[in-house]
Amino acid sequence: MNSKSILYIIKIGGNVIDSPDALNLFLKDFSSLKCDKTLIHGGGKIASQIGEKIGLKAQYNNGRRITDAPTLDLVTMVYGGLINRQITSKLQSLGCNSIGLTGADGNLLCAKKRPIVGDLDFGWVGDVRPEQVNGLFLNQLLNAGLTPIIAPLTHDGFGNLLNTNADTMAAMLSIKMQEWYEVRLIYCFEKKGILKDVSLGNEVITTLNATEYQKMKDNGTANSGILPKLDNAFAVASSGVNWVVVGHADDLLVNAVGENVVGTLIKSS
Amino acid sequence: MNSKSILYIIKIGGNVIDSPDALNLFLKDFSSLKCDKTLIHGGGKIASQIGEKIGLKAQYNNGRRITDAPTLDLVTMVYGGLINRQITSKLQSLGCNSIGLTGADGNLLCAKKRPIVGDLDFGWVGDVRPEQVNGLFLNQLLNAGLTPIIAPLTHDGFGNLLNTNADTMAAMLSIKMQEWYEVRLIYCFEKKGILKDVSLGNEVITTLNATEYQKMKDNGTANSGILPKLDNAFAVASSGVNWVVVGHADDLLVNAVGENVVGTLIKSS
Repeated sequence: MNSKSILYIIKIGGNVIDSPDALNLFLKDFSSLKCDKTLIHGGGKIASQIGEKIGLKAQYNNGRRITDAPTLDLVTMVYGGLINRQITSKLQSLGCNSIGLTGADGNLLCAKKRPIVGDLDFGWVGDVRPEQVNGLFLNQLLNAGLTPIIAPLTHDGFGNLLNTNADTMAAMLSIKMQEWYEVRLIYCFEKKGILKDVSLGNEVITTLNATEYQKMKDNGTANSGILPKLDNAFAVASSGVNWVVVGHADDLLVNAVGENVVGTLIKSS
Repeated sequence: MNSKSILYIIKIGGNVIDSPDALNLFLKDFSSLKCDKTLIHGGGKIASQIGEKIGLKAQYNNGRRITDAPTLDLVTMVYGGLINRQITSKLQSLGCNSIGLTGADGNLLCAKKRPIVGDLDFGWVGDVRPEQVNGLFLNQLLNAGLTPIIAPLTHDGFGNLLNTNADTMAAMLSIKMQEWYEVRLIYCFEKKGILKDVSLGNEVITTLNATEYQKMKDNGTANSGILPKLDNAFAVASSGVNWVVVGHADDLLVNAVGENVVGTLIKSS
């Protein structure tokens, strides 16, 4: 019998953030979750829109987008400022005592700047591992009745912020926080769940295990855009978290507390 | 005998933030203060620079600048994002376990939107009183070994952030935090202290009491730009804080811990 209390780790992506109505609806549902919870948010289109306005051109190296210094400032403003602070103030109005964080706050996530390989330099990007998560600090905040709202930024310990993938942050937090909690990780995105065959229709896979996932990758039925998220989801499931769900933001409550998950439940085996 | 421990409440203005060298020097000094401490920062020119780039024109009503919705987004990005997050990550590299906050975080400061008087509407501006400061939350963070870094933003409890004067926030925090601490408030700005006569030279007033201040206002020897800061400083001094100093950012350490304050010590009487 597991005597640990439940911690929801919820990730929302840009599609929710880009729509004020969808975001308000989601935050209302999120705030109604009675257990300890934390939210990791992505970016959304607004960073690109503001980037265009200030004349910032997306930089690429060998076809892959890089975070140069002006782009880091942009995402620090938009992810760590505008989006994070707006979510926090909205949640306060919903009675959810939230606190907006990056990985620098309380040294929550001190990451490693992605190394340059050959002439491929991603710039100010951080890669994270579970052991870099300051779980004790997160635990302290949760014990104080706070709901951490985490922007996809970490720091390098040398005074620099780092642009960090929000799906990966959610995964690393989930793996680490099992020390204190029974973790439930829910990735909210724009579809109902993982589709059986994205080219054929909308039928959602109810449960997906590692073997089935490997088959999907092999036969090409998995949407390539979802692979990094699923890789993260399976890393968490295989670490011992048995409630990893990929589903629609509108289905948060049923996926979090329902008897039957509407999205896709990720199983390690 | 006062058995409370010392809490430094330090305010830095835009002139420090606008200079990376000055900011780094200041943060090094700030991080070396051994007592509990919190930093409230202003804006700096970068908000106006980015505002210009995104085509935001300063809005005025009856000659007074107002915070319309796009301006609120701008200061949320720059004050609550860029500046606040950069200071926090820099302090982490200096061994100071900082946490970046606005008034929305942990409901630190729920303010009142400034009411419209006649046709004068300041927009999304918040006015604060000491009783609105969530001192218990700040106390909890300090007890956990954290150093709060506070952006000049509050929230209204209805989901909106509010642009708030950093000098006033520092003053209200100082008045409130006396319940737990022996507060020392230091306003850091670009001069050595309050000048005897700004038109005559640089001679700094060592101590200034309320009667002398009133005389300076009456005879016009006080620089009008400093009046709001001094009004705040005297409000704090008269509330019982006997270490209110206005001085240069470079003199933080001597003004904080020295036997003889280099700046101007504000005395209630």
